[in-house]
Amino acid sequence: MSRDHWSGKDVLSILDFSRQDLEQLFALADEFIRRPGAVEKSLSDRIVATAFFEPSTRTRLSFTTAALKLGAKVVDLSPDASSVMKGESLHDTILMLEAYSDLIVMRHPSEGAALLASEVAKIPIINGGDGSQHHPSQAMLDLFTIKRLKGRIDGLRYAILGDARYARTVTSLLYGLSKYRPASVYLVSPEGLRLRSEIKATLEGFNLETQELDKIDDVLGKVDVIYMTRIQKERFPDVNEYERVKGSYRIDKATLVKAKGAIVLHPLPRMNELAYDVDSLPSAAYMEQARLGVPLRMALLDSVLGRTKK
Amino acid sequence: MSRDHWSGKDVLSILDFSRQDLEQLFALADEFIRRPGAVEKSLSDRIVATAFFEPSTRTRLSFTTAALKLGAKVVDLSPDASSVMKGESLHDTILMLEAYSDLIVMRHPSEGAALLASEVAKIPIINGGDGSQHHPSQAMLDLFTIKRLKGRIDGLRYAILGDARYARTVTSLLYGLSKYRPASVYLVSPEGLRLRSEIKATLEGFNLETQELDKIDDVLGKVDVIYMTRIQKERFPDVNEYERVKGSYRIDKATLVKAKGAIVLHPLPRMNELAYDVDSLPSAAYMEQARLGVPLRMALLDSVLGRTKK
Amino acid sequence: MSRDHWSGKDVLSILDFSRQDLEQLFALADEFIRRPGAVEKSLSDRIVATAFFEPSTRTRLSFTTAALKLGAKVVDLSPDASSVMKGESLHDTILMLEAYSDLIVMRHPSEGAALLASEVAKIPIINGGDGSQHHPSQAMLDLFTIKRLKGRIDGLRYAILGDARYARTVTSLLYGLSKYRPASVYLVSPEGLRLRSEIKATLEGFNLETQELDKIDDVLGKVDVIYMTRIQKERFPDVNEYERVKGSYRIDKATLVKAKGAIVLHPLPRMNELAYDVDSLPSAAYMEQARLGVPLRMALLDSVLGRTKK
Repeated sequence: MSRDHWSGKDVLSILDFSRQDLEQLFALADEFIRRPGAVEKSLSDRIVATAFFEPSTRTRLSFTTAALKLGAKVVDLSPDASSVMKGESLHDTILMLEAYSDLIVMRHPSEGAALLASEVAKIPIINGGDGSQHHPSQAMLDLFTIKRLKGRIDGLRYAILGDARYARTVTSLLYGLSKYRPASVYLVSPEGLRLRSEIKATLEGFNLETQELDKIDDVLGKVDVIYMTRIQKERFPDVNEYERVKGSYRIDKATLVKAKGAIVLHPLPRMNELAYDVDSLPSAAYMEQARLGVPLRMALLDSVLGRTKK
Repeated sequence: MSRDHWSGKDVLSILDFSRQDLEQLFALADEFIRRPGAVEKSLSDRIVATAFFEPSTRTRLSFTTAALKLGAKVVDLSPDASSVMKGESLHDTILMLEAYSDLIVMRHPSEGAALLASEVAKIPIINGGDGSQHHPSQAMLDLFTIKRLKGRIDGLRYAILGDARYARTVTSLLYGLSKYRPASVYLVSPEGLRLRSEIKATLEGFNLETQELDKIDDVLGKVDVIYMTRIQKERFPDVNEYERVKGSYRIDKATLVKAKGAIVLHPLPRMNELAYDVDSLPSAAYMEQARLGVPLRMALLDSVLGRTKK
Repeated sequence: MSRDHWSGKDVLSILDFSRQDLEQLFALADEFIRRPGAVEKSLSDRIVATAFFEPSTRTRLSFTTAALKLGAKVVDLSPDASSVMKGESLHDTILMLEAYSDLIVMRHPSEGAALLASEVAKIPIINGGDGSQHHPSQAMLDLFTIKRLKGRIDGLRYAILGDARYARTVTSLLYGLSKYRPASVYLVSPEGLRLRSEIKATLEGFNLETQELDKIDDVLGKVDVIYMTRIQKERFPDVNEYERVKGSYRIDKATLVKAKGAIVLHPLPRMNELAYDVDSLPSAAYMEQARLGVPLRMALLDSVLGRTKK
C-alpha cells in the first residue's frame, strides 16, 4: 500500500487490499515503531471524527491515540451515539460528520453500514467494524502481529477458536489470510457457531481452504498460531449446550504445554475462554497485539489521510 | 461585530447583536472559508469547555471542531452532565467550569439558564441553546447561509414551517430577522404550535411583521427561503390531530416544483417532515448550512475569545 | 518532591509522599500560577489516559485541563467505562490503556483498585480516588490551598465536618496532615460516621491526634480551617436520624459569625450542608480551592511524566 495509492480512499474491508498493499502498510507501521520520537505530524490540522454506534473501547481508543500521535484533532460523536441518534438516519448523521471532519472512523451493528456511509460521504470512511463480517483494521493488526512475531504469514498453520459464525474478527482474519498462503487453517467451533456456508464458499473462491474441528486437542501440537475469540452464551439456544461445550474452546497454561512454539492471539476483551495463567508464557502474544494497534492504525490513517508524500 | 467589540462578552441572544455586529461576524466567517489553510491559531493555549445538559450533537460537535481549528483545547463536561450533575446546582457547575476553562459553550433545557450562568461566571458564556427562545449561534448560521446563497437577507420573502411555539430555532431566527428588513415573513404552523403572543408582540416592537398561515401551498411560489423545523408528535394533546395536520408541514420534491428559486433550510436533525428526494435539488441548502456551522462558530469564538487584534 | 524523584512513579496515596515531596510539589504549582503564559510544554507528544469507573467531574476535568495545558493529548475511557467494561477485568482494561498511553489517571469505587492497576501496568498510575481512603491529589490540593491562603499548614487548628467514615477526602486529608504539625484536628461527625478505629490508630502511629466532636459550635471560634464534606442520607440506617443531625453539620453565614479568620474548604460538589450565603464571605475558600486544582495537578503530572529536568 503506497500512501498515494490509498490516499482518500475508504477502508471498508480487508478484501479490498492486495497483499502488496498490506505489506506496504506493515512496513509503514514498522517505521512508526522504529522511530517513535520522529513521527511526522502528517495529520496536523486534520479533524478525525469517531462515531461508534456500538461500544468498542479498544478500537475507538487506539484509533484516537493513533490520530492524536499524527497531530490530528479528534471529535467524538460516541457519547451521544446511542441517545441522540435515535430517530436520525445514518445517512444524515454521516453527512453531519462530513461537514465537520476530514475522515470518519465508525462502528455500527448493521451489516453494510460502513459501505452506506462511504456512498453518502465524500471524505474517507474507515470501517471500525460493522455487521458480522468486516473489521479490516483488526485483521490487519492480527496479520501484522503474526508477521512481527513469526517473521512471516505464509506457510504457517493456524487454529482459530470460538465463534466462527458471528464474530467479525474471525471472518475478517480469514479474508486477510486469503491474501497469503497459510499451510493450514483449522476452525475450532461448536456446531452452532461454524462458519456460514456462503463465507466458506467465498474463501474457497480465494483458494483459502479451512478445516472444521470440534476440539483444539487434535491439532494443538501442529499449529503456529492460535487465534482465540469469545464464545457468547447468548448465541446458544440452549444454555446446557453452552455449558457442555465451553471447556473445549478454552485455553490455559496446561493446554498450551502441548503447543510449543505457537503464539496465542486474542482481539480482546477476553472472558473466561483465555486463562490468566497464559499471560506469563512466552506464547502469550495478545498484549503485544494490543500494543501494535496504535502503530498499525497510525499507518492506516497516514495512508488514507496523510499529506506527506514518500 | 469587531472582535474588539465582542471580546470577553457573553453570547446569550442574537437580540444583543446589532446588524453591524452580525455583518462583521459574517465577514470574519467568510474569511475563514476563503483561507482555510491560513487560519491563525488565535485560541492557542485557550481551554474551551462544552457543557450540554441536553443532547445536541450538531451544536456540540461544530463548536468543538471550530475551537480545535483555532488551536484551542476542548474539555467536555457532557458525558457526565446527566448523571453526575444531578444534585449539583447549575451555579456551582458553572463555577467549576470557570475554574478550568476560558469560555463555556452550554446548552440547557431551562429558559434563562445561560443568563444565569453568565451572572455566575466571569468568563464568557456562549448560549448553545436554552429554553424555547434563544439559540443565537444557530440563528447567526441561518442568516449567514442565506446571505451566502442569496447574496442578501433584506428584501427576501421567508416561509418558516413547523413548530413556532416551542422551537428555539424559530424564535431565534425571527429575532435575527428583526435586525434586517425582510419583504415578508410567513409562519406556517398548526394552530396549537403558533407563535406565542408575547413573542409576536416583541417582534412587532422591532417592526418585524409576521403572517400566520395554515398551509404552505398558498405562498409556495412567492417565497425565497423555506425554513423547516420538526413538528414533534408529543406537542399535540391529541395524536389524531397530529396525524391530520402533519402532511401540511412536510416538504418533498413534488411540493417544491411550485417553489422555483427558493432555498430550503433546516437546522437538522430531520424527521419525516423533509423528504430525502429534496436532497438532490439545487434548492436543498441544509447540508451547506450544516457545513457553514464550523466557520461561523470559528468567527464567533474568535470574536469573543481570540487574542488577535485586527 | 524533585521531579526526578517522582519521575515514572505511581501516585497511589499521599502517605507515600514526604513532607519535602509535598513542599516541592507546591513550589512547582506556585510556579505554574506565577507564569501562566510561560508553561513549558513538558508533556508534548505524551498521551494521558483518564479512566473513571465512578463519575467524578471535578477530578476528571481538572486533570484533563492540566494535561492539555502541559501539551499532552488526553484519551478518555470514561464514556464506555460503565457499559463496555462490564465483564472485562480491571487487569485487562489497565493493560489496554497501558498499550495506548503514557500515564493513567483512574478512579474506581473499590479499595485498592489503583494499587492493583499499578502492579499490572509499567506506566505510572495516578489514583484519582479509590475506595474510602485514598484520593491523593485532592488532599494535596487541600493542603496547597491552605498553604497559599494561610501561609502555612503547621500550627493551625482544623475542624473537619461531615462523613469521616466513608469520605475518602477526609481520610486522605488526615493522612496529608500527618506529614505536618497541626495544632489541633477536630473531627465533627454524627456518631455513625465517625472515623474508623483502624484509621484512627494509623494516624496515631503517625503522631496525628484527632478529637471527635458532635457539634461544630464548641470549636467554631477556635479554628483556622473548616473543611466541609457532604453527609449522604443513604449512609444512615434511619432517615429520622439523618433529619435529626444534618443541621449540626451545616454551615451558613450566621454560623460563621463566630468563626472569624477561619477559611472554609469543601472538595465539592456541595449539597445543602454549605449554604450559598457563605460564598460572598472572605472566608469562603472552596472556589479558590477548585481553581488551584489545575496548577496543582499540572505539578503532579509534570513531576511524574515531565521530561524537563530542573
